[in-house]
Amino acid sequence: MTIKVFGHTASTYSLVVLHVLKELGLSYELIQPSGFEEIKSPEYLATKHPFGRIPSLNDDGFHIYEARAIARYLINKYQGTKTSTVLIPSDVQKAALVEQFISVETSYYTQPLSKLVIQLVFRKRCGNEPDLKIVNEAREELDKTLDVYEKLLEGKDYLTGEFSLADLLHIPYTFFAINVAGEGDLWNKRPNVSRWWKNISERECWKNIVADIP
Amino acid sequence: MTIKVFGHTASTYSLVVLHVLKELGLSYELIQPSGFEEIKSPEYLATKHPFGRIPSLNDDGFHIYEARAIARYLINKYQGTKTSTVLIPSDVQKAALVEQFISVETSYYTQPLSKLVIQLVFRKRCGNEPDLKIVNEAREELDKTLDVYEKLLEGKDYLTGEFSLADLLHIPYTFFAINVAGEGDLWNKRPNVSRWWKNISERECWKNIVADIP
Ligand SMILES: N[C@@H](CCC(=O)N[C@@H](CS)C(=O)NCC(=O)O)C(=O)O
Ligand SMILES: N[C@@H](CCC(=O)N[C@@H](CS)C(=O)NCC(=O)O)C(=O)O
Repeated sequence: MTIKVFGHTASTYSLVVLHVLKELGLSYELIQPSGFEEIKSPEYLATKHPFGRIPSLNDDGFHIYEARAIARYLINKYQGTKTSTVLIPSDVQKAALVEQFISVETSYYTQPLSKLVIQLVFRKRCGNEPDLKIVNEAREELDKTLDVYEKLLEGKDYLTGEFSLADLLHIPYTFFAINVAGEGDLWNKRPNVSRWWKNISERECWKNIVADIP
Repeated sequence: MTIKVFGHTASTYSLVVLHVLKELGLSYELIQPSGFEEIKSPEYLATKHPFGRIPSLNDDGFHIYEARAIARYLINKYQGTKTSTVLIPSDVQKAALVEQFISVETSYYTQPLSKLVIQLVFRKRCGNEPDLKIVNEAREELDKTLDVYEKLLEGKDYLTGEFSLADLLHIPYTFFAINVAGEGDLWNKRPNVSRWWKNISERECWKNIVADIP
């Protein structure tokens, strides 16, 4: 049975799942909801995602939601079966460092960055003006986080040294911030951060996905 | 070598790590920082946690920070060696559901709950008045999340059916909200949520830890 993804190519968290599927060499069918109403409908809440979000995934009858959990599930089940890409290493200490940087990503990077992208990209698309107070606070917070990243990435191509799920989780929001919101300066002005962004954003699998972003 | 935890018994994220250590039957030494200045000092940032937080952990020379990553590391390395408690099952689908509920906890539960507890407990302790706008928004958001939990917990003792790391991660903030901030009504008025809270907060390991909270 083909893996079914309920998601959208304009949704950052869906793009995480699609990118993981491609890195692992898995084929899938993407099922896009018709709109906001659908993902808040009683049927959707009861069968797809109780908090009314995308993405979720169905693998031969096994249903799971939340992007980071879906990513870990796919890796646990399929890593090494179709491609040699390692997103979470089997070594306990190496895996721990991947988890450390996933928590760093969630806690200090994506939190301010998502606020920035929501204001500058998604609100604008709906015809709303961005809230500049939120934009400035988020930019300031992200700036501090990137100062720390600049140190953490000294002499390294990737956060743990090798490409992993931790790097991958940074890609979609950063892509929107740089390529749609025009905030590239935050990354470009830092040599280590900018080298890292080049390394992760030029993955073949990601470039395939970008071609489909509306 | 004894496992060293850099943390504090008044810190919710440190309590997560201490609780995991106890569930796994591991002994540890808790090293408490002298105060806020210490965790923001250049030496601390360079050697303990680059974002200036607690907790972090040192296991025979291997250093790792971020509570959820530390928890997964300890489980990967030590689960089943001293106690029979299973915090992340080895079955791929069961583990995926634990990860799903960890992401639910992080995204929809701890986000509003931590705002509530910071305002009503930690700010008050420093002699500051809580910001009532933040308190009300956080309470409202948490109320919606708990409505979903009430459905998810129908007929279940724990989020995935059996006690796991997903349940454990909910405990410290909920403890402060109920036992210090006096917000217990949010949990008590929902039969399934309230049964679940009883199940998880009455774990022997957690009761041992509570005895040490200042
Ligand atoms: N915690 C969820 C977040 C998913 C999420 O917020 N998805 C967005 C699209 S990128 C969504 O469904 N938004 C609809 C809403 O917030 O109502 C995950 O990690 O999968
Ligand atoms: N993302 C971190 C959060 C840790 C955290 O915020 N710890 C608090 C104490 S519970 C802290 O260090 N606060 C100091 C600060 O925020 O400056 C984790 O999961 O470990």
